[in-house]
Amino acid sequence: MIDLDGTVTVAEYLGLRLRHAGVEHLFGVPGDFNLNLLDGLAFVEGLRWVGSPNELGAGYAADAYARRRGLSALFTTYGVGELSAINAVAGSAAEDSPVVHVVGSPRTTTVAGGALVHHTIADGDFRHFARAYAEVTVAQAMVTATDAGAQIDRVLLAALTHRKPVYLSIPQDLALHRIPAAPLREPLTPASDPAAVERFRTAVRDLLTPAVRPIMLVGQLVSRYGLSTLVTDMTTRSGIPVAAQLSAKGVIDESVEGNLGLYAGSMLDGPAASLIDSADVVLHLGTALTAELTGFFTHRRPDARTVQLLSTAALVGTTRFDNVLFPDAMTTLAEVLTTFPAPARLAAPTTRAEPTGLAASITPPAPSAVDLTASTATDLTAPTAGDISEMSRVLTQDAFWAGMQAWLPAGHALVADTGTSYWGALALRLPGDTVFLGQPIWNSIGWALPAVLGQGLADPDRRPVLVIGDGAAQMTIQELSTIVAAGLRPIILLLNNRGYTIERALQSPNAGYNDVADWNWRAVVAAFAGPDTDYHHAATGTELAKALTAASESNRPVFIEVELDAFDTPPLLRRLAERATAPS
Amino acid sequence: MIDLDGTVTVAEYLGLRLRHAGVEHLFGVPGDFNLNLLDGLAFVEGLRWVGSPNELGAGYAADAYARRRGLSALFTTYGVGELSAINAVAGSAAEDSPVVHVVGSPRTTTVAGGALVHHTIADGDFRHFARAYAEVTVAQAMVTATDAGAQIDRVLLAALTHRKPVYLSIPQDLALHRIPAAPLREPLTPASDPAAVERFRTAVRDLLTPAVRPIMLVGQLVSRYGLSTLVTDMTTRSGIPVAAQLSAKGVIDESVEGNLGLYAGSMLDGPAASLIDSADVVLHLGTALTAELTGFFTHRRPDARTVQLLSTAALVGTTRFDNVLFPDAMTTLAEVLTTFPAPARLAAPTTRAEPTGLAASITPPAPSAVDLTASTATDLTAPTAGDISEMSRVLTQDAFWAGMQAWLPAGHALVADTGTSYWGALALRLPGDTVFLGQPIWNSIGWALPAVLGQGLADPDRRPVLVIGDGAAQMTIQELSTIVAAGLRPIILLLNNRGYTIERALQSPNAGYNDVADWNWRAVVAAFAGPDTDYHHAATGTELAKALTAASESNRPVFIEVELDAFDTPPLLRRLAERATAPS
Repeated sequence: MIDLDGTVTVAEYLGLRLRHAGVEHLFGVPGDFNLNLLDGLAFVEGLRWVGSPNELGAGYAADAYARRRGLSALFTTYGVGELSAINAVAGSAAEDSPVVHVVGSPRTTTVAGGALVHHTIADGDFRHFARAYAEVTVAQAMVTATDAGAQIDRVLLAALTHRKPVYLSIPQDLALHRIPAAPLREPLTPASDPAAVERFRTAVRDLLTPAVRPIMLVGQLVSRYGLSTLVTDMTTRSGIPVAAQLSAKGVIDESVEGNLGLYAGSMLDGPAASLIDSADVVLHLGTALTAELTGFFTHRRPDARTVQLLSTAALVGTTRFDNVLFPDAMTTLAEVLTTFPAPARLAAPTTRAEPTGLAASITPPAPSAVDLTASTATDLTAPTAGDISEMSRVLTQDAFWAGMQAWLPAGHALVADTGTSYWGALALRLPGDTVFLGQPIWNSIGWALPAVLGQGLADPDRRPVLVIGDGAAQMTIQELSTIVAAGLRPIILLLNNRGYTIERALQSPNAGYNDVADWNWRAVVAAFAGPDTDYHHAATGTELAKALTAASESNRPVFIEVELDAFDTPPLLRRLAERATAPS
Repeated sequence: MIDLDGTVTVAEYLGLRLRHAGVEHLFGVPGDFNLNLLDGLAFVEGLRWVGSPNELGAGYAADAYARRRGLSALFTTYGVGELSAINAVAGSAAEDSPVVHVVGSPRTTTVAGGALVHHTIADGDFRHFARAYAEVTVAQAMVTATDAGAQIDRVLLAALTHRKPVYLSIPQDLALHRIPAAPLREPLTPASDPAAVERFRTAVRDLLTPAVRPIMLVGQLVSRYGLSTLVTDMTTRSGIPVAAQLSAKGVIDESVEGNLGLYAGSMLDGPAASLIDSADVVLHLGTALTAELTGFFTHRRPDARTVQLLSTAALVGTTRFDNVLFPDAMTTLAEVLTTFPAPARLAAPTTRAEPTGLAASITPPAPSAVDLTASTATDLTAPTAGDISEMSRVLTQDAFWAGMQAWLPAGHALVADTGTSYWGALALRLPGDTVFLGQPIWNSIGWALPAVLGQGLADPDRRPVLVIGDGAAQMTIQELSTIVAAGLRPIILLLNNRGYTIERALQSPNAGYNDVADWNWRAVVAAFAGPDTDYHHAATGTELAKALTAASESNRPVFIEVELDAFDTPPLLRRLAERATAPS
């Protein structure tokens, strides 16, 4: 046991802080400069090392873990290790995922002397990589002997406050240096300015009191702070309808009354767009207003009648309230809404609007059953029930996603990689208690496979379902071995369309650069996932239905290779491509 | 044909410059921001696109290609793509490899407006990643419509001059913008200051004229500038002996008379150390004085009697001559040496000194034959000839390297990854006409597998032989598919010791973090290299001998999985570990 009146090593101090924040798994790759750190962390009860084949995979896993747990830790060595993970950490910055990237760095004497050592560019400057990381993290510290505890606390608190990644460099000779344990008595708790919160309360109440058609727009911060239930309560109690950005797909249960589905400006049809356009107050709950999330800036821009809740500030119209942290702003807003009259005064639809046009693929009607061999088989290729000849047709994207819709069970985590996978999955109506993970801002292909590792370890009772293209999976395929070694049993749907189909949709469809090397995916599974993983091949609706049914019945990891045409795309991706390539 | 009086696209301009510099292959990964660039490059005759599964692999391949060709080009997309390659590019900076990293970036109007788009961290700042790259490259440019040609020329010239990587960002809307072709009439030729060269000539002549025991120490720049033959001529004509840093292993044919083998301070025994200590002039030909390369700073430090030739400057004692480029300094030095008296005045050994102690493993005697089943089988486990029972013993590191020594044919490229592979390979006496590639400064494990792609394409008549550990190969294994798809037929020796043995040698040998997930390597080959690749498994000397013989006889890619003990290391690595972990 730790004696809080005594000392702990720097490694233990960090490890205990991580434990307090809910971290149980440490992601990363060892290297000589971080071995003292890893050795020291082994003394902290309740922390488990999850080594990855490379740092990019570890970084992606940490990204997903932090989304669920509210914090994660990524351990790499100096130079070679940290730089291999910087794409993942930049993605965590874009996607509001609080990853603590801990770098084991050379000894303080080496750095002070400017010695030329390995893992440097041999110019005596040891700050190159920290400066690179300052571009993608919200706080940085190079730990010193005299101030290690305070430095660790400062960067961890920044991660917890901003829900962004931070950078912590721990020299090899300080990892096992002993420092006072006493600060560990006090938890690290981000705190708002109470006066600012009250000013925000007054302002938002003044704006909302006369409102008759307010609407809520949910962004990714709601899930990053674990506030889905609060939003559901808010919409249920107040009757104020809620829409979600693409980045918040699934954050509010799609069966909740008043849930209008997705909003992305005029890119999507459906009820959300018109209700947001006509709303007298729009409540932005942790949104991000990027091109893809706003339908290429066709959204209703924030104006005097918009409330925007950011991670550390809130805006009412153009009045900004700093040091109002997102959870406090949300609680305050919920309190304001409880003083509202009955929902009847609001103009929100009391029954779910039936989507038309493209929206039908965004919020399709719920299937009548999940038995693919029976009535819902119609969702695959729209044959009449029992028409096996249609089911034996080569799969199209439309048929694949209809099959997914019919099958996807409740209680799973659906992880969709960038590209056809993401734009296809967006159109699914999610069953109850489904977690949906994507990366719609950073859009780094290959993210989703390692994300299954992070999600699966963070949320072990929820089976991950991964949808990923072959081009994306080729980026990070080695992480499959970590997933299986960690005891997870995801259902992986590998959409094999022989290359980068999202790029084919955007430009030069026949360009050779969009083709990838042909892999034997059955052998990939044998190589990384071992004999205790199920492999299925699905080229037809019948094969897909059979594989999905078998997957649900299997207690093992399942890998389904789905054959799709190189040029076939889901409807939303076609619309995205039209918008993205339209002359501006 | 290009009309040099007319215009070309920015893409064509860049492509033509690359062709002029000897580039035939373009490495990288497509992404929406670089598709215009790739489409434009397709119009340049003689350039071939080599797409990789991910950017790190492409970057490593480009690193090896640049070492051989004097320049290479790496194409990635903005943000996600470029950041995934930054570890490779930083390695190119450390190892003096001139890679032009070309990033396809968002439109100029997007950047000017600070629009929030994908592949950004959604804060409107488009300079984050360029600033990160400024930490690891010697020149950077963000191409503009008005100055594109000059900007391209400036960064390419910097790469050619410094033999370091450079960064070139080309906005999506400028890739096909037309610019004057006229500057292409003039080749890009790095040039020294002629007056500085003459002052250097005088200074080096004054230092060398009274010298009786000069010695040359070859560093990596000699191979980067393709000057091996010049150095061989210099030592042969002048009789001045030559030693090589670890980073220049194999640069001078090891059978050349006067070649003393490797020098790394007192870390290695053998003739080089004592002759350098007693030399009256030490000529540093493009050396790098890092910890590992100097035997942890036990080398003879540069002093008043040292000449140091760097990429863009030369030092005689402490007198620095700027703008004396390495090739010009080398030529000047060679000219000075031709005015020397006969070699007899020099105290160099006229016959090769016989190494003793550890040096025996650095420069072992040449094997008497390469037939493993006959006399040289003794090199595997030192049994007497024909003693098959000894050959059937489980392989040790010593036996493996003895087997490699006996087998390695002339005319190959030996690529050794960091770790046991590198420290084992260093001890080999290389047969004639062998190119040796390692990464002894940056030391990023996993580099060597993609390096085979770059080396193989740059130097197609030379079959690559790769030695790599399993932990390293797990980092970048997907590049195996690119290697095979490109038509290369390397011989790959996968040293399977179930983890990071170099770290086990350094610290905490039984720590779980040094173990990696168990892969089925036979299936890995089936997955990525297809049925037309040979797989062999070697757990004994007999199996290794058989596999190596079969590899030489095969026209296909060959993958040999070699079983080694998790804690067994080659002798040089043991000495490295002693030095690296000694209290300082």
